[in-house]
Amino acid sequence: MQICKVIGNVWATKKDDSLNGFKLLVVEPVDYSSHGLKSPAYVAVDVVGAGAGELVLVVQGSSARKVGGRMNKIP
Amino acid sequence: MQICKVIGNVWATKKDDSLNGFKLLVVEPVDYSSHGLKSPAYVAVDVVGAGAGELVLVVQGSSARKVGGRMNKIP
Amino acid sequence: MQICKVIGNVWATKKDDSLNGFKLLVVEPVDYSSHGLKSPAYVAVDVVGAGAGELVLVVQGSSARKVGGRMNKIP
Amino acid sequence: MQICKVIGNVWATKKDDSLNGFKLLVVEPVDYSSHGLKSPAYVAVDVVGAGAGELVLVVQGSSARKVGGRMNKIP
Amino acid sequence: MQICKVIGNVWATKKDDSLNGFKLLVVEPVDYSSHGLKSPAYVAVDVVGAGAGELVLVVQGSSARKVGGRMNKIP
Repeated sequence: MQICKVIGNVWATKKDDSLNGFKLLVVEPVDYSSHGLKSPAYVAVDVVGAGAGELVLVVQGSSARKVGGRMNKIP
Repeated sequence: MQICKVIGNVWATKKDDSLNGFKLLVVEPVDYSSHGLKSPAYVAVDVVGAGAGELVLVVQGSSARKVGGRMNKIP
Repeated sequence: MQICKVIGNVWATKKDDSLNGFKLLVVEPVDYSSHGLKSPAYVAVDVVGAGAGELVLVVQGSSARKVGGRMNKIP
Repeated sequence: MQICKVIGNVWATKKDDSLNGFKLLVVEPVDYSSHGLKSPAYVAVDVVGAGAGELVLVVQGSSARKVGGRMNKIP
Repeated sequence: MQICKVIGNVWATKKDDSLNGFKLLVVEPVDYSSHGLKSPAYVAVDVVGAGAGELVLVVQGSSARKVGGRMNKIP
């Protein structure tokens, strides 16, 4: 899991049906180590109702599909 | 998921049967954070009919096999 | 698996039910090679009762869900 | 999937039974973006009969086990 | 798969039951490309009886659980 800061939203003009009804956030990883390394922003599905500027915990890969019962069809 | 820009197509002279009938795109990740970090381009299967220069949302790993019912045999 | 140093804890104001009852640690990878490369810190679920400053072995991805019988619902 | 260039072969003096009968290639990712970033070489199982210097499409993770019917036991 | 050099062992004072009976190695990826890029060392389970200084092929993620019949409980 990564601690990320929400920096925006994504709207898609065309998308796979499995993503319908989900809000997509652009998130930027925050490095809490003493090195403060930078990582590229990516897109995450919002399951807690987060807004821009808030800190969120983001899971990736197959783990992401296990968060929230209704998400089993999310890529 | 990553926001990527389509920068080209891939044609293979020989390929695994599971990839037959799919269009392959060369995509380059776009970093929307304030750091604008660069990441190497990679190859993604096209399921929305994207063309060069367009921005697309790309999923990876086991998640990619869950996008679109017909894709369950895609690596 | 990575060797990491625990550098802190995480408290979430709102979280997915599957994470209830688990302690979350902020961990920083430690590189034991001669290069001493730095990697960004991330968040791991604590299953051994580690504290700040301790070295821990951290597994990621689908493997993390297999550690400890009670963890099969963890993302 | 990544576009890689085959740069060599691997011979193992001792190996897991699941790898018997497979040719292992050392491949180096090629970045077709305008940045031309370098990534470390790694080892891939050859399913198309590629030789040194050729460009190949490489899949990783659980996806790699789905390429070719006979590969279901490959790590 | 990555080609790595064994640079040491790991002893844990407390560990998950699923790791009992396995020897853990600290391995450092070796880049055979012309760029010779450095990657951080990590920890791998030893299934072939490797010693310090030896070169080994390391698999990661869900693939690692498929190497060797007795390893199906390894994270």
